[in-house]
Amino acid sequence: MHKKLPVLAIALGCAFSAFAADPAPNGISLPDGYKDWRLLSVHQRTDNNTIRAVLGNDVAIKAARDGKTNPWPDGAVLAKMVWKGVKHDKWEAAIEPGAFVHAEFMIKDNQKHAATGGWGYARWLGMEQKPYGKDATFVQECVGCHTPVKDRDWVFTHPVKLP
Amino acid sequence: MHKKLPVLAIALGCAFSAFAADPAPNGISLPDGYKDWRLLSVHQRTDNNTIRAVLGNDVAIKAARDGKTNPWPDGAVLAKMVWKGVKHDKWEAAIEPGAFVHAEFMIKDNQKHAATGGWGYARWLGMEQKPYGKDATFVQECVGCHTPVKDRDWVFTHPVKLP
Repeated sequence: MHKKLPVLAIALGCAFSAFAADPAPNGISLPDGYKDWRLLSVHQRTDNNTIRAVLGNDVAIKAARDGKTNPWPDGAVLAKMVWKGVKHDKWEAAIEPGAFVHAEFMIKDNQKHAATGGWGYARWLGMEQKPYGKDATFVQECVGCHTPVKDRDWVFTHPVKLP
Repeated sequence: MHKKLPVLAIALGCAFSAFAADPAPNGISLPDGYKDWRLLSVHQRTDNNTIRAVLGNDVAIKAARDGKTNPWPDGAVLAKMVWKGVKHDKWEAAIEPGAFVHAEFMIKDNQKHAATGGWGYARWLGMEQKPYGKDATFVQECVGCHTPVKDRDWVFTHPVKLP
């Protein structure tokens, strides 16, 4: 049995490395547990044929339900899950998630991310969660795209109202 | 101060009645806390211009993540939130949730709902959560619509895979 331990250790090492995504080029780490966060909204985009879910951590959900999102509070994190849109196999007129495209995040910390409107941006590509961006300047692309919603704290998502 | 207590009691009574939806015509009660459930999938439908989020209770989420959804286990509840799709005001090619259409549920209980494939169906309309259906026979409409997916335990939703 002893002889098998190093093999087991290597196997475990590989298993762990498969779950630990590298940080984004601006130093942001993949937020823990975002799969379990609650729903803020859903979107579909016809320009790139994707369907999306926006989730929020507890701080973000509380802010959304209290209607206090302009500005969003420090500590709020928004997670956008993006899939290619594909035709549902049993409902011709329905689009459902196909291949996973990326998970992207906005992390509110007014002090830390003062240079980018108080938000830290990061994105991880695909199921393998490869960090997006060659270097830290990738965030200028994020900020540029979000500029149309600068006056509502840089956030496109309108949190849904649910009964 | 004493004199104000009855007024307060009436006010509280009204507040509570605003949150208690009537049960569906087949006796199913609106599941508690579904707004806080986790994500199973998202859909968009072009035939009726709606965008949807499918959430699951803990039993459903565990089954989905374990890949044990044919059949889904007793106790699983799927909640589908449906909104009209509207054009995003700041992103021309994006569709986001507009008016809330309804919340609909599938509740797995093989014994209780044996007559309808082991699933109890119920739907509540709009933000006012008016139960759908004139009488208990409304479930035949649900079952009829779900018949194309009878061989995968009557469920259209393919739970998303997330990294």
